[in-house]
Amino acid sequence: MKLAISTLALLFVTFATPLPAQDRIATIRQAALNDDTAWSIIEGLTSEIGPRPAGSETEARARAWAVARLKALGFANVHVEPFDIADGWVRGEERAEIVAPFPQPLVLTALGGSGATPAAGFTGEVVAFATLDALRAADPALIRGKIVYLGNQMVAARDGTNYAAFTPFRRRGPSVAAQKAAIAILIRSIGTDHHRVAHAGQTNWADGVSPIPAAALTVPDAEQVERILTRGKPVTVHLVLTPRRVGRQISGNVIAEVPGRDPALPIIVVGGHLDSWDLGTGAIDDGAGIAITAAAAKQVMAAGRPLRTIRLVWFGSEEPGGLGGEAYAAAHPADRPGLVSEADFGGDRVWRFMASTAPSGTPVVDRMAAALAPLGVDWGGETAQAGSDVWPLVDRGAARFALAQDGTRYFDVHHTADDTLDKIDRAQLRQAVAAWTMVLAVAADSAEPLGPVTPSTPAAH
Amino acid sequence: MKLAISTLALLFVTFATPLPAQDRIATIRQAALNDDTAWSIIEGLTSEIGPRPAGSETEARARAWAVARLKALGFANVHVEPFDIADGWVRGEERAEIVAPFPQPLVLTALGGSGATPAAGFTGEVVAFATLDALRAADPALIRGKIVYLGNQMVAARDGTNYAAFTPFRRRGPSVAAQKAAIAILIRSIGTDHHRVAHAGQTNWADGVSPIPAAALTVPDAEQVERILTRGKPVTVHLVLTPRRVGRQISGNVIAEVPGRDPALPIIVVGGHLDSWDLGTGAIDDGAGIAITAAAAKQVMAAGRPLRTIRLVWFGSEEPGGLGGEAYAAAHPADRPGLVSEADFGGDRVWRFMASTAPSGTPVVDRMAAALAPLGVDWGGETAQAGSDVWPLVDRGAARFALAQDGTRYFDVHHTADDTLDKIDRAQLRQAVAAWTMVLAVAADSAEPLGPVTPSTPAAH
Repeated sequence: MKLAISTLALLFVTFATPLPAQDRIATIRQAALNDDTAWSIIEGLTSEIGPRPAGSETEARARAWAVARLKALGFANVHVEPFDIADGWVRGEERAEIVAPFPQPLVLTALGGSGATPAAGFTGEVVAFATLDALRAADPALIRGKIVYLGNQMVAARDGTNYAAFTPFRRRGPSVAAQKAAIAILIRSIGTDHHRVAHAGQTNWADGVSPIPAAALTVPDAEQVERILTRGKPVTVHLVLTPRRVGRQISGNVIAEVPGRDPALPIIVVGGHLDSWDLGTGAIDDGAGIAITAAAAKQVMAAGRPLRTIRLVWFGSEEPGGLGGEAYAAAHPADRPGLVSEADFGGDRVWRFMASTAPSGTPVVDRMAAALAPLGVDWGGETAQAGSDVWPLVDRGAARFALAQDGTRYFDVHHTADDTLDKIDRAQLRQAVAAWTMVLAVAADSAEPLGPVTPSTPAAH
Repeated sequence: MKLAISTLALLFVTFATPLPAQDRIATIRQAALNDDTAWSIIEGLTSEIGPRPAGSETEARARAWAVARLKALGFANVHVEPFDIADGWVRGEERAEIVAPFPQPLVLTALGGSGATPAAGFTGEVVAFATLDALRAADPALIRGKIVYLGNQMVAARDGTNYAAFTPFRRRGPSVAAQKAAIAILIRSIGTDHHRVAHAGQTNWADGVSPIPAAALTVPDAEQVERILTRGKPVTVHLVLTPRRVGRQISGNVIAEVPGRDPALPIIVVGGHLDSWDLGTGAIDDGAGIAITAAAAKQVMAAGRPLRTIRLVWFGSEEPGGLGGEAYAAAHPADRPGLVSEADFGGDRVWRFMASTAPSGTPVVDRMAAALAPLGVDWGGETAQAGSDVWPLVDRGAARFALAQDGTRYFDVHHTADDTLDKIDRAQLRQAVAAWTMVLAVAADSAEPLGPVTPSTPAAH
């Protein structure tokens, strides 16, 4: 009889209290895996706005679209925080052709920040380098008055490490060529595809260097130039590239919140970037990132008001160099978020989880890792690349995490006209949303201090 | 002792006479499988000439290149047979953008024979049709003054049957739209990829129809237009398309021969087409076809002078509608070839063999099929699509064959800027050369009459 009462009491407890934490997490995970909110955001943004370059009128339309969508999703405190871009840059005409020895057109696109040729273009002889180190080591006399061609050895990899290795070719190569008095530079696209779509991207000019025309050839065009160079005859190219600086432009960050129960606890800041390069519709870069983080925050919100506030930031003008992230940090000088991360690596599945917290955050990270394990996400250690826009917050000691997505396909499409909705794999996207949901759900219901963390050096984004 | 002498006699016979036919064929097959002549032709033509549209100066350069290469390969009677194109067509500017409801650029390319917009373009409302039949059935009042959008349901298939199904959308759709007073037509590219490269191709205007601007959207752009149309708001597009007619142009066929021992036997005529669309470098269409047939003919030549002459024809100006084939037939009014075929389906492996001969040719076809079997090529029956350029010869009763290549990847790239050398798979290309070598080797050493054959209706190419 005593035994029977105990059993009854146990059953009563089971049904009357909230679900145990593990069951609750499993329920939220399953809800995220069944949800198409992220897909719907990407579909809407890419169809109804399309390309939305930093500082453009279409980026402004994207902000208005974002505010309406985030309000419709039920977020609180939805608003825009505008900021200025000191000097915008817009693409102009861009075409090139081999003049000799084998006349034929080339497909290319100007790099962000490129200088311009005269309207009618100019013709120059090509001098080729396989690596940035070779260009750096070259005698300036070989380069003066010439068009530099800079190859690279980019190959696909799940973790995208090759991009970190070759981005400096695009970011620094043009400046090095200009310092050696090249008249222009053509780089091989930092891409892993073989399509006639060039990979754009920002280039950085060293102090005091006057920008020269700088463009990326598509991979097939770059290989064509390399093949023709092996014939051993002088190769000359005619180049027309007329981008221009457009002065002060307006950009902005879009903010939305899931309010927490305890306003005294440091908040969680996550998001992606709303701007895209001008060539594609920014489905993988970074429609996916804003969609994944918003869909995950919505799942947490749907599961009941969390302990901590989650602030979602859809950053503006990331592509020219994390301008939205800088503006956010400047607009919130007193902000000391508990945890930050940006999703900016496409829409494919998450395979690895990394987090850098204070020692007091270790039990929280352990709970996150346990919640992620059923999704096939492995623990990857404490070196978390949290994304360029949240780095100013990391510099303030915010704990950070990273959910590494499969990047095998990412650099086929990254910064190209091919960055379109059809590249999104809905099943993988749902898994990524579920992974983000797990981390946010655990973090938002944890009271343990997550920071401060001594910042480390940011990697290229 | 008697036994020993017999054994010696047998050995003597084995070494002193030519290899038995089957061994000889196996030796030739293996030589073809090890040969990179075809690759070398494609590499040279695409690198040193590049795009070579019908009637262009680059097509003329391609002919000069071809003569030099074919002579270097050891062919006899290498020469050009020039012919006129009555009225050439060249691409101009081409751009489009959605004006409303969601302003954004579109990527497209003019179809061959397209009319032009004014230089500043024009704007029109889009009216969409999913199929050519739906366009044909539509009330002209719905179309008058509008821009027609014509979708399609093209999917990849090894045998390319879907292309035959959807080519009429490109060839006939513009004419139907013009007859109903559309101001322009945008078709979804007849392609199986998802890249921002449009698929060009010829369109045919019915008698008395004035050409309207006609272009192909890339598949992602077409899907974007379809998605935006589902929003139910009027869609308007601004279109600039300025191709033009350029009057009489010169083209030509390049001829080369493997002389046979018996000039009385009807010759074999095979080849591909030297011209390409202007967007890519024509690696798969049809660098591969001319390379495969030349490499196969060279293998036969290297194995010893055959019985019949093999004439290799690299046709000019196939893309606007088989003009080189017509010119060849007109220039050789008395030609009654014994066997014909054109390779014009890329560089991937051969999986099926078809042949249409007179009954007297059946044993020859059986020997061909036996020689092909070790390459994994199956017999596909007597309905052989021999290629558009040789159809005038089929009309004269020539026997024909077809070596069906794997077309799964072909329409990813066909008629696009992506038709470049990197799309060639060297291993599959060698197998295709070996298959062609088998058919040519058997045919060239067969004395049995192969024709005449009553011609059947040609299929779209």
